[in-house]
Amino acid sequence: MLDSFHAAIKAADPAQIVSRFLPDLADISGHVFVVGAGKASAAMALAVEKNWPEDKALNGIVITRYGCGLSTHRLEIFEAGHPVPDEKSVYTTQRILEQVKQLTENDLLLCLFSGGGSSLLSLPSDGISLADLQTMTRQLLQCGAKIQEINTVRKHLSRILGGQLAAASHAPVLTLMISDVTGDDPTHIASGPCTPDPTYFSDALEILKRYQLNAPQNIRNKLIAGVQGQVRETPKPGSSIFKHVKNYVIASAHLSLTAAKKYLQDNLFNVLVLGDTVTGEAREVAKVYAALIKEIRHYPDLLKPPAALLSGGETTVTVKGQGRGGRNTEFLLALLIELNGLSDVYALACDTDGIDGSEENAGAIITPSSLSRAQKKGLQADEFLTNNDAYSFFEQLGDLVVTGPTYTNVNDYRVILIV
Amino acid sequence: MLDSFHAAIKAADPAQIVSRFLPDLADISGHVFVVGAGKASAAMALAVEKNWPEDKALNGIVITRYGCGLSTHRLEIFEAGHPVPDEKSVYTTQRILEQVKQLTENDLLLCLFSGGGSSLLSLPSDGISLADLQTMTRQLLQCGAKIQEINTVRKHLSRILGGQLAAASHAPVLTLMISDVTGDDPTHIASGPCTPDPTYFSDALEILKRYQLNAPQNIRNKLIAGVQGQVRETPKPGSSIFKHVKNYVIASAHLSLTAAKKYLQDNLFNVLVLGDTVTGEAREVAKVYAALIKEIRHYPDLLKPPAALLSGGETTVTVKGQGRGGRNTEFLLALLIELNGLSDVYALACDTDGIDGSEENAGAIITPSSLSRAQKKGLQADEFLTNNDAYSFFEQLGDLVVTGPTYTNVNDYRVILIV
Repeated sequence: MLDSFHAAIKAADPAQIVSRFLPDLADISGHVFVVGAGKASAAMALAVEKNWPEDKALNGIVITRYGCGLSTHRLEIFEAGHPVPDEKSVYTTQRILEQVKQLTENDLLLCLFSGGGSSLLSLPSDGISLADLQTMTRQLLQCGAKIQEINTVRKHLSRILGGQLAAASHAPVLTLMISDVTGDDPTHIASGPCTPDPTYFSDALEILKRYQLNAPQNIRNKLIAGVQGQVRETPKPGSSIFKHVKNYVIASAHLSLTAAKKYLQDNLFNVLVLGDTVTGEAREVAKVYAALIKEIRHYPDLLKPPAALLSGGETTVTVKGQGRGGRNTEFLLALLIELNGLSDVYALACDTDGIDGSEENAGAIITPSSLSRAQKKGLQADEFLTNNDAYSFFEQLGDLVVTGPTYTNVNDYRVILIV
Repeated sequence: MLDSFHAAIKAADPAQIVSRFLPDLADISGHVFVVGAGKASAAMALAVEKNWPEDKALNGIVITRYGCGLSTHRLEIFEAGHPVPDEKSVYTTQRILEQVKQLTENDLLLCLFSGGGSSLLSLPSDGISLADLQTMTRQLLQCGAKIQEINTVRKHLSRILGGQLAAASHAPVLTLMISDVTGDDPTHIASGPCTPDPTYFSDALEILKRYQLNAPQNIRNKLIAGVQGQVRETPKPGSSIFKHVKNYVIASAHLSLTAAKKYLQDNLFNVLVLGDTVTGEAREVAKVYAALIKEIRHYPDLLKPPAALLSGGETTVTVKGQGRGGRNTEFLLALLIELNGLSDVYALACDTDGIDGSEENAGAIITPSSLSRAQKKGLQADEFLTNNDAYSFFEQLGDLVVTGPTYTNVNDYRVILIV
C-alpha cells in the first residue's frame, strides 16, 4: 500500500515530470519568461531550472504560499498569502503582469500553475481595494460555496485570472498545470489565468445572492456594471486570444491513480479505480466503500481477490468534536468501524501533499488486526470518530503514515486491498 | 431499468419463491403448525396455503402489521402494532406460544418471518408490562440506536425472541425468512425467534447506558437481574436446542440483486454489484457513485459501457427541510445534481416494498435529459434537494416509479446504466 502511494506521489512530483513538457528552445528566437503561481509552483520552478541549459537565458517570477518557497538560482520566488490574498500577492502579481505585457511574439510565456494560484495571483480590478477582495474572499470561503463558484467570483474581480494573463501576452503561451481540483478542468486550476472563461458577471452576482453574502459595495457595483456591459468580460471560449496558448495538465489525481494502478497490477492485484473525483462526507464515503468491500469478500465476481480498490478526490469532514485529524484518517476510522474486523482487508488513505489536515501525517493505514489492537489498548473506535479524533486513534495505534511535505498536491489517495 | 427492478422484486416475492422451500409432507407423521410474523408474512402465509395439498391439514397463526393483512382460508392472520407493540401483539403472541408448546417431536413448526417481526411478536418477560415495553421501544427507536442494538434489548425483555420460540418447541423447526436487514443475519430478522442469540443481558444494559435512555424501572431491574444470573439467558450458539432447527433466508437484497444482474447480463450489460448492504446518508452515497460513473464514462477499463451498477441496502436521510420524499428519490436527486447533465447515464432507485418513505411511489428514475427538462419547467434541483423535496421534483417531471405495495421487502434497489 505504501509503495503504491509512493508511485502515486512520484507521478505528480514536479522533479520527475516537468522536464518532459519543456519547450524546444531551438523554436524560440526571443526570450522565455516564466510565471508561476500555486502551492506546488516553487517545486515546478526548481524542476524547470534544473532542466534548463546553462547557456540559455531564463528568468521569471513565481508566487507560492508562505512556507512553500524553495531555493532557486535564476527564477525569483516570492511567498504570499493563501487562501486570502495579501499585499505581497498584489505587489508580485502587478510585477508579473507588467513583465508579461512587454513580451513579443518571438518570446514564450511559460506558466507553472497549481492549486492555490487563485489567491496567490491576485490583482483586483479598477475600483476594488485589496481590503474589499480580502473581505469577499473570506465570505466566500466560509459560506460553503464550491471552489468553482468561488473562482467564478474571483475571476470577475481580477485583472489576471480567467484567461486575462494570456490576453495580456503577445508571446505564445505554454502552461503546465498540476491539478488539485476534481475533474482537472484548467479553468479551475489557479482560476485559469491562460484558459478561456465560460462564466459571466451575472454568474458571479448570482453566487453572491445564492449564499446571501454581504459583499463590499465596490464589488457589488463592479459586478452590476459588468452585467450592464460597462466592464469588459473575461475572454470566452472560442476567442482568438487562445490560438497561441497550449495548456497541459501534467499531474492530476487521474495520472497518479493510473501510476498506482500499474504498480498494483504489476504485483498481480485485480484493480478497480472507483473515481478520481470522489467527494462527500468522509465517514459516509467509508460506508459506501465498506459495502463494496463486503460484496467482493462474500461474492467475488468481476473483481476477484487479491483485489485493489483505488480512488482519489477530496472528501469533507463536518467537524463536530474537539479532536485532531484530517479527512483521510477520519475516512479510515469510519471504514474500520464499518468493516468490524472483516478479515483480509487492508487500507491506506493519505493526502498526496503529505499533510492530512493540520497535523504532520499524510494519513494512516488499517489492517485486519487494527480493531483488536485498539481494543487491547482500550481505544474505543466509535468514541474517537464521534470526537473527530482519528489522528489520536491512529497515533496511539502506531499506524500513522508520515512522509513530510511532497511539494505537490493531487488531493486524496485511497487504496483498499482485499487479499 | 424498470424490468430489472421487476426482476429484483420477483426474486423476493413470496408467491414466487415460498413453494420451493416447503417441507416434504411424506416425512412428517404429525401436524404442521405455521407461525408467521412480519410485514411480508401474510403474503408468505398465502403462498404456503396455495401450495399446500387440499387433503393435508394446515393451521397456524400469523401476525402482520395493520394494513398488511391478506385474505386466507386456512391460516389465521392477525394485524397488530408496528414498530411499537400493542395489546393485539401480546394477545396473539401468547396464543402462538401456547400452541407451539403443545407440539410433539412428530410435528413440524413452520415459521415465516420477515422485517417488522420483532415488534409484532411481542410477549414481555415476567414482571414487565406492555406499557413498559412500549415506553422502552419508543425510546430505542428515537435515540438513533442501530437495529441490531434495538433487537438486543428486545430479545432480553421477551419470552419468544432470540431463539426462545425454538426452545419452546418439541417439534423440529423449519424457518423461512425474508431479510430486510443489511447482512441477512437470521438473528436480526424478526429478532431471530428460532436462531441462537449471541448477545447477553450485559449487552442490553450497555446499550441503555450508551444512549442514556431512561428505561422503566421494571426493565432496568430485569436486565440487572439477568446480568446477576437470576434470569435465564436466551439460548446461545452451540446450544442443542437448535439441532432440529433449519433456517433459510429465502429472499434478500443479495438474491434480488443477483436476479437483476442476470436480467441485465442477458441484455448484454457488463454488471458490477456495488454491495447489498449500502448504508450512509443518501446524498453522500450519490456523490461516491457519481465519481464512479464519471470514471467509467471517461476511462472505461474493467467495466466497459454498456455497463450497469447495482446496489442494495438502506440509505438514510437526515431531514432538514419541509419537503416530501424518501431515501431513494433523495439519492436520485443528489445524483442528478452531481452528474450535472453527463450524457448516456440513466438511473433508477426504488424501495422493493413499493413505498419510498411516506408517499405512494416506490422511487423514481433519472435520464440524461432530466436536468434540462427540469430547467425548462423552472425547477431548481438544488433547491428541491435542500428542502428534502425530491418527491415533488420527480412528480413534476413525471418520473416517479409507482408499483403499489409489493408484499415483500428486501430494502433499496438501485440500478445505474452507463450506455
